[in-house]
Amino acid sequence: MLSKSQIQFVKSLKLKKFREEHNLFIAEGVKMVKELLNSAIVVKQIYATSDFFRNNIINNAIERFEIKENELERISILTTPNEVVAICEIPKHDLNIDSLMDKLTLVLDDIKDPGNLGTIIRMADWFGIETIICSTETAEIYNPKVVQATMGSISRIKVHYTDLPSFFEQQSSNKKQPIFGALLEGENIYTQPLSANGFIIIGNESKGISEMLYPIITNKISIPSFSHFTNSNGEAESLNAAVATAVICSEFRRRA
Amino acid sequence: MLSKSQIQFVKSLKLKKFREEHNLFIAEGVKMVKELLNSAIVVKQIYATSDFFRNNIINNAIERFEIKENELERISILTTPNEVVAICEIPKHDLNIDSLMDKLTLVLDDIKDPGNLGTIIRMADWFGIETIICSTETAEIYNPKVVQATMGSISRIKVHYTDLPSFFEQQSSNKKQPIFGALLEGENIYTQPLSANGFIIIGNESKGISEMLYPIITNKISIPSFSHFTNSNGEAESLNAAVATAVICSEFRRRA
Repeated sequence: MLSKSQIQFVKSLKLKKFREEHNLFIAEGVKMVKELLNSAIVVKQIYATSDFFRNNIINNAIERFEIKENELERISILTTPNEVVAICEIPKHDLNIDSLMDKLTLVLDDIKDPGNLGTIIRMADWFGIETIICSTETAEIYNPKVVQATMGSISRIKVHYTDLPSFFEQQSSNKKQPIFGALLEGENIYTQPLSANGFIIIGNESKGISEMLYPIITNKISIPSFSHFTNSNGEAESLNAAVATAVICSEFRRRA
Repeated sequence: MLSKSQIQFVKSLKLKKFREEHNLFIAEGVKMVKELLNSAIVVKQIYATSDFFRNNIINNAIERFEIKENELERISILTTPNEVVAICEIPKHDLNIDSLMDKLTLVLDDIKDPGNLGTIIRMADWFGIETIICSTETAEIYNPKVVQATMGSISRIKVHYTDLPSFFEQQSSNKKQPIFGALLEGENIYTQPLSANGFIIIGNESKGISEMLYPIITNKISIPSFSHFTNSNGEAESLNAAVATAVICSEFRRRA
């Protein structure tokens, strides 16, 4: 049986303050935890029902706690808890802009919605984008809502938080890559030349890309609207940020 | 000041049962309500702060209630209420499959998540898809979470609920259109011939398209994964349903 303080400890990790203090995050559900166990992420503790331990071989280095359904419900953030809660170490990745040469990298400028961030991480995994650079104001990746929305992709994608203008200043002059910015008034992405490497900047859900980043953008791109195909008055003003990111990544990759 | 029964009435519309009983739904926020006022949707009542009434001209046929911030908070479903709550009539659209000839139409087979449905409606508006046919098990469009996620596009897109197999049986034999199905084992959408008209079936978030619909699909399509571009073990198993729908619609439209 879990002690009060154990329950409090697990629940405390729902808050950023305690995640940072302990350098730990929570992930839940059978599929998610199995992906984490098979990844470079260090799993420290597993709280799970007997079913989970019967069906999965767990490395001895991981502290394990067999718990009952009602205990799982107490520590879970899901409306339908699913066998297991894992406590994992927040990984440290070094960030060197020149190491991203020849790769396609996403840059998120203040994406605020945790669901959008999680969906973008999952989508990046599908489209083979290994690294995501986030502004310091972007939603926190270890927020449980983000972790769960990634559907396991959090174990494969490297996400960095940094001051974006300073980050781009570090580019060596001989290793300049194109920097694409998704803007409402950009060039039609379907007809614009794209490259197999470079950065794609996606702006905030309501404000778009910060003006201070405009000077570093080398290619302004835009997804054209096809609202004129319908008979209705008015038209959609924008696409959801995760949806726009996916359409852009699809367009880059389809030409590869 | 609002009476208890008025507050109860507005709040009751958060439940499907009462929406169906009154044939009404709720929409909130300045931008959303302004779009509804400029659309074919019939707005019956407006509950708003004095600011909203000062800045907007409201047709006399609409019942209006000037309310205080604290009253708005009591009837709102948003965490940050925004000036106005509107009560609108659920529109009736006739559905005739042959009238969709020469158009691109989305078909949703049991999309369950309200956020996904709202995002798909918004995205359909952007890509000029006027009509969405939903299976009877798809999330309800007038769920307030769906309404808000559409960002106003709910006023322009026609959404029908019907039994999908019977719907497709109604196609006149001389008006057959291609029926595309998004499947994990379909043909690469980037290299497959697509058409400017027809139906695109999107399946449930975890189960995909129901097997009983397989026989009517004329073209199986799939978004290929580019996970091999990264160095990590394993790969993303799927894309979020709204994201996949957007990538597919983008690919259809870019060829138009």
